[in-house]
Amino acid sequence: MDRDRIRALLEDVSSGRLAVDEAFRRLRTLPYEDIGFAKVDLHRAIRGGAAEAVFCEGKTVEQVVAVVTRLAEHHGNVLATRASGEIAAAIGAAGLPHRYQADARLVVVRPEPVVGVGLIALVSAGTADIPVAEEAAVTAEVLGNHVERAYDCGVAGLHRLLDQHQLLTEANAIVVVAGMEGALPSVVAGLVDRPVIAVPTSVGYGTSFGGIAALLAMLNSCAPGVSVVNIDNGYGAAHQASQINRLVAKAG
Amino acid sequence: MDRDRIRALLEDVSSGRLAVDEAFRRLRTLPYEDIGFAKVDLHRAIRGGAAEAVFCEGKTVEQVVAVVTRLAEHHGNVLATRASGEIAAAIGAAGLPHRYQADARLVVVRPEPVVGVGLIALVSAGTADIPVAEEAAVTAEVLGNHVERAYDCGVAGLHRLLDQHQLLTEANAIVVVAGMEGALPSVVAGLVDRPVIAVPTSVGYGTSFGGIAALLAMLNSCAPGVSVVNIDNGYGAAHQASQINRLVAKAG
Amino acid sequence: MDRDRIRALLEDVSSGRLAVDEAFRRLRTLPYEDIGFAKVDLHRAIRGGAAEAVFCEGKTVEQVVAVVTRLAEHHGNVLATRASGEIAAAIGAAGLPHRYQADARLVVVRPEPVVGVGLIALVSAGTADIPVAEEAAVTAEVLGNHVERAYDCGVAGLHRLLDQHQLLTEANAIVVVAGMEGALPSVVAGLVDRPVIAVPTSVGYGTSFGGIAALLAMLNSCAPGVSVVNIDNGYGAAHQASQINRLVAKAG
Amino acid sequence: MDRDRIRALLEDVSSGRLAVDEAFRRLRTLPYEDIGFAKVDLHRAIRGGAAEAVFCEGKTVEQVVAVVTRLAEHHGNVLATRASGEIAAAIGAAGLPHRYQADARLVVVRPEPVVGVGLIALVSAGTADIPVAEEAAVTAEVLGNHVERAYDCGVAGLHRLLDQHQLLTEANAIVVVAGMEGALPSVVAGLVDRPVIAVPTSVGYGTSFGGIAALLAMLNSCAPGVSVVNIDNGYGAAHQASQINRLVAKAG
Amino acid sequence: MDRDRIRALLEDVSSGRLAVDEAFRRLRTLPYEDIGFAKVDLHRAIRGGAAEAVFCEGKTVEQVVAVVTRLAEHHGNVLATRASGEIAAAIGAAGLPHRYQADARLVVVRPEPVVGVGLIALVSAGTADIPVAEEAAVTAEVLGNHVERAYDCGVAGLHRLLDQHQLLTEANAIVVVAGMEGALPSVVAGLVDRPVIAVPTSVGYGTSFGGIAALLAMLNSCAPGVSVVNIDNGYGAAHQASQINRLVAKAG
Amino acid sequence: MDRDRIRALLEDVSSGRLAVDEAFRRLRTLPYEDIGFAKVDLHRAIRGGAAEAVFCEGKTVEQVVAVVTRLAEHHGNVLATRASGEIAAAIGAAGLPHRYQADARLVVVRPEPVVGVGLIALVSAGTADIPVAEEAAVTAEVLGNHVERAYDCGVAGLHRLLDQHQLLTEANAIVVVAGMEGALPSVVAGLVDRPVIAVPTSVGYGTSFGGIAALLAMLNSCAPGVSVVNIDNGYGAAHQASQINRLVAKAG
Amino acid sequence: MDRDRIRALLEDVSSGRLAVDEAFRRLRTLPYEDIGFAKVDLHRAIRGGAAEAVFCEGKTVEQVVAVVTRLAEHHGNVLATRASGEIAAAIGAAGLPHRYQADARLVVVRPEPVVGVGLIALVSAGTADIPVAEEAAVTAEVLGNHVERAYDCGVAGLHRLLDQHQLLTEANAIVVVAGMEGALPSVVAGLVDRPVIAVPTSVGYGTSFGGIAALLAMLNSCAPGVSVVNIDNGYGAAHQASQINRLVAKAG
Amino acid sequence: MDRDRIRALLEDVSSGRLAVDEAFRRLRTLPYEDIGFAKVDLHRAIRGGAAEAVFCEGKTVEQVVAVVTRLAEHHGNVLATRASGEIAAAIGAAGLPHRYQADARLVVVRPEPVVGVGLIALVSAGTADIPVAEEAAVTAEVLGNHVERAYDCGVAGLHRLLDQHQLLTEANAIVVVAGMEGALPSVVAGLVDRPVIAVPTSVGYGTSFGGIAALLAMLNSCAPGVSVVNIDNGYGAAHQASQINRLVAKAG
Repeated sequence: MDRDRIRALLEDVSSGRLAVDEAFRRLRTLPYEDIGFAKVDLHRAIRGGAAEAVFCEGKTVEQVVAVVTRLAEHHGNVLATRASGEIAAAIGAAGLPHRYQADARLVVVRPEPVVGVGLIALVSAGTADIPVAEEAAVTAEVLGNHVERAYDCGVAGLHRLLDQHQLLTEANAIVVVAGMEGALPSVVAGLVDRPVIAVPTSVGYGTSFGGIAALLAMLNSCAPGVSVVNIDNGYGAAHQASQINRLVAKAG
Repeated sequence: MDRDRIRALLEDVSSGRLAVDEAFRRLRTLPYEDIGFAKVDLHRAIRGGAAEAVFCEGKTVEQVVAVVTRLAEHHGNVLATRASGEIAAAIGAAGLPHRYQADARLVVVRPEPVVGVGLIALVSAGTADIPVAEEAAVTAEVLGNHVERAYDCGVAGLHRLLDQHQLLTEANAIVVVAGMEGALPSVVAGLVDRPVIAVPTSVGYGTSFGGIAALLAMLNSCAPGVSVVNIDNGYGAAHQASQINRLVAKAG
Repeated sequence: MDRDRIRALLEDVSSGRLAVDEAFRRLRTLPYEDIGFAKVDLHRAIRGGAAEAVFCEGKTVEQVVAVVTRLAEHHGNVLATRASGEIAAAIGAAGLPHRYQADARLVVVRPEPVVGVGLIALVSAGTADIPVAEEAAVTAEVLGNHVERAYDCGVAGLHRLLDQHQLLTEANAIVVVAGMEGALPSVVAGLVDRPVIAVPTSVGYGTSFGGIAALLAMLNSCAPGVSVVNIDNGYGAAHQASQINRLVAKAG
Repeated sequence: MDRDRIRALLEDVSSGRLAVDEAFRRLRTLPYEDIGFAKVDLHRAIRGGAAEAVFCEGKTVEQVVAVVTRLAEHHGNVLATRASGEIAAAIGAAGLPHRYQADARLVVVRPEPVVGVGLIALVSAGTADIPVAEEAAVTAEVLGNHVERAYDCGVAGLHRLLDQHQLLTEANAIVVVAGMEGALPSVVAGLVDRPVIAVPTSVGYGTSFGGIAALLAMLNSCAPGVSVVNIDNGYGAAHQASQINRLVAKAG
Repeated sequence: MDRDRIRALLEDVSSGRLAVDEAFRRLRTLPYEDIGFAKVDLHRAIRGGAAEAVFCEGKTVEQVVAVVTRLAEHHGNVLATRASGEIAAAIGAAGLPHRYQADARLVVVRPEPVVGVGLIALVSAGTADIPVAEEAAVTAEVLGNHVERAYDCGVAGLHRLLDQHQLLTEANAIVVVAGMEGALPSVVAGLVDRPVIAVPTSVGYGTSFGGIAALLAMLNSCAPGVSVVNIDNGYGAAHQASQINRLVAKAG
Repeated sequence: MDRDRIRALLEDVSSGRLAVDEAFRRLRTLPYEDIGFAKVDLHRAIRGGAAEAVFCEGKTVEQVVAVVTRLAEHHGNVLATRASGEIAAAIGAAGLPHRYQADARLVVVRPEPVVGVGLIALVSAGTADIPVAEEAAVTAEVLGNHVERAYDCGVAGLHRLLDQHQLLTEANAIVVVAGMEGALPSVVAGLVDRPVIAVPTSVGYGTSFGGIAALLAMLNSCAPGVSVVNIDNGYGAAHQASQINRLVAKAG
Repeated sequence: MDRDRIRALLEDVSSGRLAVDEAFRRLRTLPYEDIGFAKVDLHRAIRGGAAEAVFCEGKTVEQVVAVVTRLAEHHGNVLATRASGEIAAAIGAAGLPHRYQADARLVVVRPEPVVGVGLIALVSAGTADIPVAEEAAVTAEVLGNHVERAYDCGVAGLHRLLDQHQLLTEANAIVVVAGMEGALPSVVAGLVDRPVIAVPTSVGYGTSFGGIAALLAMLNSCAPGVSVVNIDNGYGAAHQASQINRLVAKAG
Repeated sequence: MDRDRIRALLEDVSSGRLAVDEAFRRLRTLPYEDIGFAKVDLHRAIRGGAAEAVFCEGKTVEQVVAVVTRLAEHHGNVLATRASGEIAAAIGAAGLPHRYQADARLVVVRPEPVVGVGLIALVSAGTADIPVAEEAAVTAEVLGNHVERAYDCGVAGLHRLLDQHQLLTEANAIVVVAGMEGALPSVVAGLVDRPVIAVPTSVGYGTSFGGIAALLAMLNSCAPGVSVVNIDNGYGAAHQASQINRLVAKAG
């Protein structure tokens, strides 16, 4: 029940077309319908300007295709994350225009050009971290941000990171992607005074425990200004970086 | 050693005023002098406008007093976090003007009035989470942010949280503090499209594992837009929220 | 040895038809036979009105078929849980009438119509939680309960849950199925005063640790009235919900 | 805004005393006021007939006294759980009539006689589990249930448990409290077809890990019909047992 | 109800002194009385020749004194394990003759001389493991076994262990007590073909995790013939070693 | 170098047949030769009467075949544990007489008849535990023990276990195999006074954590007389049970 | 840009062959090139005489071939670790001379003869540890060290280890590779006063937790002189052993 | 019995001063005495030039005093690590000359001047890491090494570490002490080609888990050349660094 319908209802009561009892009955359900109404508002707020995203893991190919088809009726740049090639193929077979970035495991459905605002820096440690970093980078781009990548900047070769100093100081938000010992976000946050969103990756072996070592390192960063998302959650980091960057860009 | 000095050095070599060997010796140390020079810059960048903070745990009372004394020579609003009453007393005994907020376990040394910019919302779940929430709130205020508190908004009584809807939509950053099952950040991030920095607290017992249950819940939030800091790390969340809020406020 | 046989034995002793020594010899074995007798009673109590269930994981296809064949000689609606399609096919090949619900990984052998009593509400968070939710729902139905499903009610979109308020208040037991941060049971238990049986699912990635994050959240619920079963244990939750619902329905 | 006020508003619109625009403006805020209204309803539903409870850990003595004082203005039998003797004394010093059960670490504030309905069986394994069992037993009694205790029934001496067979079969809900290997709930659920709510206790040492061993055993029970609450959470188990028992008793 | 009483009952029925109905009523309770009867038998079997033991942790001083007083009425050499000096003093104050071995944290109540049979070897690694080793040694002695101690035989100085080769080959059971890396049981089991019962101790720091490192090492022993008890569970190891040694001694 | 050779060496020195320097050189190596000598003795002790065993996991098929071929030159009844069908086939292809028991994942190479002495009881909880139980049973038989199996005696149906009371009281050692909540060893050890060697299995799901739940329950058994081996380590349990049973049988 | 080139540049400026502006332009990038320069220096220092190594896991076959091709342009004996046969084949297909050691999962690209200096002892416990031990051994050889292997020296057969006493006392560094209970490094470090670098392997099952049991044992070694690398990290252990051994050899 | 005494014994036999029988009796104990002899050799080898050390935790004050008294009869510079002030006082009360370094929790008993050879660099991250760093530094000095300290070099302020570049390149071994995220060893090992022994400290809170976060980071270092010791094990790191440094120094 949206605003127009509430106003119409009141007008019906005012005009005598609707009895008070019936109007009351309809409004009684308002706590729910009203929240349904709120839902739409929130919906817009949450999604304001952003692409829709579907997390593919744990869903069947059929479910993913059904959901993205419905979303693509109303949105461009619908994201399917953690998408296998099979899913990409099925989306194509369903007749949906799309772009598949296998390295980022992302399908962009009904791709539309976006002019990115502001600046998000995307820093990653090693070659094997690139899939997660690309998930973050492409997501941020699709969400309407200008993104600069600085890959292969692990702490074992500090000079490569220090080369990126200017980029880091100019970014409104920095997404740092690292596996193994996960030291990179601490070093980045020690270099510049910008919010660092750290993404631990499951890269490593043995006691990396699928990214837990990196996660713990990031949570225990001795440099303030680091917050952390789930292991391999490039999408989540990009989403928050986009929230920050777009708030800054919009304010500017 | 800045660019002018390098050019001057080369000109001295070119003109014969400087021997190749001596020029080489000076350039050899460049990586360090250069980084030393950068250090000062970074130093400023990192500390730009923010208060200094000293984490008291694991330091002796004497060490804390010595460090805050040195910092207070150059800064007002120096923060001593995780400070016991004993530390506060010792800071007082050292003749330093200060304000002790026992609930937040914070000492503000050489307190100075700050006009907070923007808006950071500080939401917490239960009474027992308040010390961590206050650590975050006071830190954010001292760092120059306008802070609004919404305490006791646990998910078992959703209405109290929903009452805060307007506050949440207006904030540039939202710090959400919760222990036990740590569900609050997910619900907040589902309501509004603002960056949520989640702080798990060690509140709980048994399988809360001193905050791990809450931490895991926050890392696994089904709502995008949540990042997480270490357990009980109110300071860290406030620091990042301040980075975000001040970027937005400065851009405005 | 049942009660009649004991009485008959005593009468034989009383009438002199049975010597004391022989009677004693027979009774000596009573601790075991007697418990065997108890066994039957318990057996009935435990299984009273309920379908038999076979957990398929860790059993060979041959073992499962052998067990369900024997059970189906005496019972209808025998459940085979965690059943692969291969198992379903083998059950069919064995000539047993059955219904396979692939999404719930359940085979109902010798399916018979059941009129469900009372009301169990089955609430789940996300699309990927549906297999576990369906395992619970079908189990509860087969056990003789009326079941209402409310799926896709994750806390990131509260309105969908609030829409189910009436269902929740009318249920005698509520099974809540959720993965990721596992916040849904807390929110449900905060809304209504009905017993909530929470089922963490292994849905998630990284620090969801195969459902541990959700499990911990559920065990640490800030809302009283939540108890928890093993990860993905839809069957167990349905079994207990059925015990509760049928107790209430029978009392009514 | 309660129902009467909504009806009055509609009547004012109907009668022309209130313009549609103003009525719309007032209703616009309904999502929040309405939920505030719902809050009261939920509040009643949640608390319907039950005592209020305050969890004391992590709260200061002053906070506990303040909260129970406010609650005791409207309720009798307010429970303060995990209460130290110091808290009990402070409640007494505040002039509140109360009863302190040190073994259960419970204070009942403004104690009032309650006639317990139905039957909850409270089974515990060892002497050291009694504090948690008593927390559950007293809570259940205060919540209006008839409670029977069967303590010291550990699986190392099965006969003691088997002696309680009749009690177990008559209970509407069984709370089983056990530490160490936590086997008791499985054995109880194997004996009778009643909902078993298992409470792991932190009793044990070494690899009991403060109750984790017992918790895991309970979650992995081979007998269906067992659900589990947090370690040492006697209150939570009693709360849910009360929900079940009172539903049955009310239906009868 | 023991065998004589059942036979007497049958004879009363046979002779007409007892009516069938009354006899049946008495026998009806047999499932429980019978198990009570079995209980006594088991009781004897379990305790046959062995001392009674009370685990003091988690019990109040009063509870411990009450239990050992009752046990000491029927048994000598009652063991109170994990007993503080305060408990020992309270036992003395209760007028019970006793011997307190503070290093083993054991009180032997109503101590009586025991002639130990067979041979149990008690091997420990370091000085800090001695309290647990002594708990095991004294327990084994009180249970009627001949015990030989070989302490301070850590694997960092193999010669000390090799010196004990003859002792090890002659023992019917070997209890090996070690903390830190817990390697000693593997080495012992590699030297001799006797059952090794390994007791991890909580000795160590950091990643010893209170004995978990040692426990895991022992469970993963590359030498067959090692089984393990709980961390610091000297009593349990001694109990099983006694079962083994006494079986062998009795058979001889 | 044995005692006679040392005496002969000394006599050679005494008589002048051996120079001091050469004698010293020979004695210098004594620590190693001597231990080498001990090695042989130990070797015999360790292997005395027992079959050789090869753990196949982590070895290539070629390595397994090579090792068992060498062992089978000197021993019958060589065991290959955790053996796949592929390994069994390769052993056959190598021309070695053998018997493959697929359920126990065991190959017995050069099988020879063994007359088992004494009595080992093999108790297991569920159908899925049988592979581990059979590994233990067959190992114990090959090691020369009389073995009686009592399978499917889980604690959810106590009567099945109680039926085995006599077997349990007659065994010299009891191997108890259980997954899930791992409660069976506690119940068995509460029934009879015989050494119980508990084998947790990886049977279960979710929080069974591949057998950790069962392992912890067994380590925390409230009944004394339980020791534990690694998860799924049927071989190890059988090895120790054999040590115990054969010591008793040999003594008798 | 190495030192010679900087000196040459300065000489060109000095001699007038290079204009100040062009020299400045080249040096302008020095803060970065300089660090690049440092990089090269470090590069050489780090790799001084050492082979380059590429960790293959987590990289695509194409990425590995691209990297080793580039490295092989400047270096011989480039190592590809954790290399599958597929990677080895692709390296061959790219026309690169190479040697594949499947057991060590290593490809040596552009293999060149190396004369090993000093002595590194490579000790391993079981057959299944050999792949990791070989990774270490071959790495150490390629890095220019003399390596002696002592395999199959597990603590269950001490004599085999004691036979290696002389080797151990002569080595400048000892790499000890062990899975399961990981006791071997403690025993080795108890025998000789040489730095022991312990490598836990993922060999084992159940509670070996993929090498964690061995790792913890090694970290908790009661013998000083043991340090530890990641599970299965033969390369890392060899790298550090090489650093030590070459420092000693160079000093000699 | 050392080598000279064996040779003397042989000479006595050769010269007839000692009868064969008596010589044999003395040598008979050789397998043990010999190992005792080996022990002394090992003893010397292990301790060669090094101080004796006693780990105080888990020992009573009396035990520590007894052990250091005995050691101090034969050695100077006996170390008591993890020593409380109470232990230091008791050592003094026992009349032993000593030096107590409270920050390093070390007592040096019978302190003697040592001229340190070579160079060990001791790098630490934060103020709170200093106790562990000092334990390492003083231990290394007492063991006869030249030690240079570089404290407060955390990765959040890279310039402080880079300032130490020359020290790092000159050291034969580098001990790096860090808590929290434990990133420092990776950065150090990325800078210089020297063996880095990393010591995680228990400094941190929440998810630092008492040093586990740092430990995992160090084990997962992306820079080769890092090995790790137990949490807070400054002594162990110093011991191995001393082994390395002294090998190099002795070779030089």
